[in-house]
Amino acid sequence: MINSLISIRDISNAGILGLFELAQEYNAQGRKRLDVAHNAIIATLFYEPSTRTRMSFEAAMLRLGGQVISMADPGASSAVKGETLADTVRIVESYADIIALRHPREGAAQVAAEHAGVPIINAGDGAREHPTQTLVDLYTIYREIGRLEGVTVALCGDLKHGRTVHSLAQGLARFGAHMICVAPPGLELPPALVATLTQNFGVNIDSFSTLDAAPLGDCDALYVTRLQKERFADPAELEKVRHSYVVSHDSLTRLRTNAIILHPLPRVDELDFALDGDPRAAYFRQAAYGVPVRMALISALLGLRDIANLYETVHGEWGRYPRLYNCENARCIINAEPGIPIRTEVRKDGTRRCGYCEKMEAACQR
Amino acid sequence: MINSLISIRDISNAGILGLFELAQEYNAQGRKRLDVAHNAIIATLFYEPSTRTRMSFEAAMLRLGGQVISMADPGASSAVKGETLADTVRIVESYADIIALRHPREGAAQVAAEHAGVPIINAGDGAREHPTQTLVDLYTIYREIGRLEGVTVALCGDLKHGRTVHSLAQGLARFGAHMICVAPPGLELPPALVATLTQNFGVNIDSFSTLDAAPLGDCDALYVTRLQKERFADPAELEKVRHSYVVSHDSLTRLRTNAIILHPLPRVDELDFALDGDPRAAYFRQAAYGVPVRMALISALLGLRDIANLYETVHGEWGRYPRLYNCENARCIINAEPGIPIRTEVRKDGTRRCGYCEKMEAACQR
Amino acid sequence: MINSLISIRDISNAGILGLFELAQEYNAQGRKRLDVAHNAIIATLFYEPSTRTRMSFEAAMLRLGGQVISMADPGASSAVKGETLADTVRIVESYADIIALRHPREGAAQVAAEHAGVPIINAGDGAREHPTQTLVDLYTIYREIGRLEGVTVALCGDLKHGRTVHSLAQGLARFGAHMICVAPPGLELPPALVATLTQNFGVNIDSFSTLDAAPLGDCDALYVTRLQKERFADPAELEKVRHSYVVSHDSLTRLRTNAIILHPLPRVDELDFALDGDPRAAYFRQAAYGVPVRMALISALLGLRDIANLYETVHGEWGRYPRLYNCENARCIINAEPGIPIRTEVRKDGTRRCGYCEKMEAACQR
Repeated sequence: MINSLISIRDISNAGILGLFELAQEYNAQGRKRLDVAHNAIIATLFYEPSTRTRMSFEAAMLRLGGQVISMADPGASSAVKGETLADTVRIVESYADIIALRHPREGAAQVAAEHAGVPIINAGDGAREHPTQTLVDLYTIYREIGRLEGVTVALCGDLKHGRTVHSLAQGLARFGAHMICVAPPGLELPPALVATLTQNFGVNIDSFSTLDAAPLGDCDALYVTRLQKERFADPAELEKVRHSYVVSHDSLTRLRTNAIILHPLPRVDELDFALDGDPRAAYFRQAAYGVPVRMALISALLGLRDIANLYETVHGEWGRYPRLYNCENARCIINAEPGIPIRTEVRKDGTRRCGYCEKMEAACQR
Repeated sequence: MINSLISIRDISNAGILGLFELAQEYNAQGRKRLDVAHNAIIATLFYEPSTRTRMSFEAAMLRLGGQVISMADPGASSAVKGETLADTVRIVESYADIIALRHPREGAAQVAAEHAGVPIINAGDGAREHPTQTLVDLYTIYREIGRLEGVTVALCGDLKHGRTVHSLAQGLARFGAHMICVAPPGLELPPALVATLTQNFGVNIDSFSTLDAAPLGDCDALYVTRLQKERFADPAELEKVRHSYVVSHDSLTRLRTNAIILHPLPRVDELDFALDGDPRAAYFRQAAYGVPVRMALISALLGLRDIANLYETVHGEWGRYPRLYNCENARCIINAEPGIPIRTEVRKDGTRRCGYCEKMEAACQR
Repeated sequence: MINSLISIRDISNAGILGLFELAQEYNAQGRKRLDVAHNAIIATLFYEPSTRTRMSFEAAMLRLGGQVISMADPGASSAVKGETLADTVRIVESYADIIALRHPREGAAQVAAEHAGVPIINAGDGAREHPTQTLVDLYTIYREIGRLEGVTVALCGDLKHGRTVHSLAQGLARFGAHMICVAPPGLELPPALVATLTQNFGVNIDSFSTLDAAPLGDCDALYVTRLQKERFADPAELEKVRHSYVVSHDSLTRLRTNAIILHPLPRVDELDFALDGDPRAAYFRQAAYGVPVRMALISALLGLRDIANLYETVHGEWGRYPRLYNCENARCIINAEPGIPIRTEVRKDGTRRCGYCEKMEAACQR
């Protein structure tokens, strides 16, 4: 398999820091068009709309001196003619040197990477992974706080759903960060994830049910995510608790002057517009860092810049064994893609998981 | 506020002529790709489809040596996730160095310009303004007739609705042009606009209700716009009068040999296809001038070429005072965008208007 | 009329071979961005979605060093405002130096070419022509088998419908190839086409009703196309016969080791995924050749590289005489486009055909 980025777990801590150093270099060069990727074309294949993510990849490639071809509109794709994703990437690889793929199916980027002759960057595969968002989140802390090791980050909002915050928690844990979780009852970080992170990385994870109760004064960063009405059994319940998770000037008085507020955006009302002028409000800078981070990633995956040990395994926590399972996760790519082999992973902890969407056997076995 | 073009009133007469001189220079260089904007990216953000306008901006940027990222499909935008326009432009400004924005809401470009850290070009905000179309219209007359001052222009069609012809009338008045208006009863140029132009600029505006009656022989240019069925209370009424506003060979016999026929396009049936071969039919040349004019504008707003006194105030006709009004214009951006301050302008003539859509207080006050 | 490619019949055999030599040259240069088309912009105007074809043109132009503007989404076009295609291309010609047009109407590319001041490449006009697909098909055989003259090609699947296989059959006949046709009863190559090819080019065309019966061992290439359920009066009929047209390992045992399998893609189930690893499976290479072939074509039409006798007439088989017919083919462009002249061709064989969609008078006369 060609160098690809499917999951944040694909790349090592050393690799992440190497990418960040390169991102710093690109950031320092401002808006100059470089000549690094003069001969390269990126294809942005977006089977789901995401203007911001797509434009961020395209701007990154253009700033590197490369070019772009784009499928921004899912309705305009060959997929409507019934073509498999595997076939599509085998064709697009002859038009482009690297592919950024957004797809509604879990495991889609994995399938693409196994069939393409060019690097695949997972720009979001359903509810599963969006690793460049995690890289941007981590880079923002790295750049603005100065380090990742030992930082204290508060995660606030819906911590149960949403790939963004799960991936970030894993990334922070890998670098030895402390986490303070602030979530409404029922929307806490999944206990299994907390257990894994605590055991594997020895990090502290403290939990609170309101922002008021949380020790914001200890934090280097406050990471806010959306609360979505549809996640509450009784939507009226959200209105009752929403104010406990809205970041306002009161929260700011307790935050250090050199702390930062992050948000993956788009926000709805969990970040008061009045915060925008505060220098600690880092969420638009965070969005802007998407360009140098993706520039660094594209350069590395295309082999234009060397990042030492990019793919050195972090966990070594599972192996892969082909087995005759079908995945019962309706959103898994395997249920939409004929011609790809069924595959189950047997992990160190004994669980068996779908090789694409990573759902456990309980949900997978037939 | 960064240099932007929201309204044709933003820029001075000297600035317009400066842009036209630069457009002449670019036009003379043909289809060569220049290196003027080598380091720049334009984002074309089109919340409404307009292939021609979008492509014109993109071709202009590419001919300047710059690059393009594009959102051509409103359905594919982050706006469907509920993001405000202000947030979107604050993100896109980190991907692009200048933004051309098309949006269905009146005042949208104003909001974008107030939040973006890069220049905004209004590529149409609802029924309000489309200043680059006005620049292209004026440039066509400037280039083909040789001057703007003192030219005589007939405006024909629906002169009541449509930002295109209102903006052009203002532009022509500013340069001291005479206007001959030809419109069906009920679709004349709004009397308030006629009064303003006459008083402020001392121009002559004569009105006729059919092309036959109008002194076409006096005109340097005949500007034709569409009659739309839906503008008539009784659609059958249109069929009765339509022939009085169709430009045909008969009209041509009365036009000078060195006069020109303009149309913002697309046309429906108000310009006979048989005219296309006549050298006075300038409407396709007019469309082509969109490229050098937008090249000049992009160069100026990016600071790549200096246009003297571009922003020198023309009218000084109003000041801005924040007041607690809400705009009741349902199509105004303020009713779709949380987090932007309510603002009312008090003009020299005593009227109070919404600071975004410019509707008068009568329609604004609560 | 400017140099355009509307039909594969527009260009001579010498011209096709000249394009192929240039494509070989481009292919040999790998993925380097050339500087051949530095000053040129291609507009890809796709009134029907076709991501693969569009991206292939765009990658070709970018590899040549040129730039791209694109309309990928038919819903986003000015056509929804009722603009004629003729008007659209007269405007887009001022933004771009060459236009690749995909349109649902038969004859659309012909209309575009007659009005545009820049070359038009037909990227598919309804059911009629898709000449660059034919060039890519022929180039794949030329490149992989080493010649076109005297090769033996099996055509398998629905040979009655589908422009792809008809154009290929004509192209093969022009170069003196032998054809073996394998089709279900009722979906054979149209007898009129067989008669024309046999008479005009003296080629052998043998027919079989199953792959098993066909002498695959004699073939240099096996060209497979889709069987579409909707082409069968009784869809259950397809299920009965489908297996007779599926290419599987058994077919491979009878194919020469140096033969190739082609498919215009996307495939459904007529090519077993298990074939993909076989070196004779050339369909993804075929898709990849789309880039160098389109690079060669763009270079030639822009006059950046000279192809000797590109437009030398092959057949001289018809003349054009204006006559007062309306075409009754509901899918013909003439029925959607006001302002284009009605035109009938009288061919050498005495038939009269619409000058746009080429349907015979029987279907055209009023």
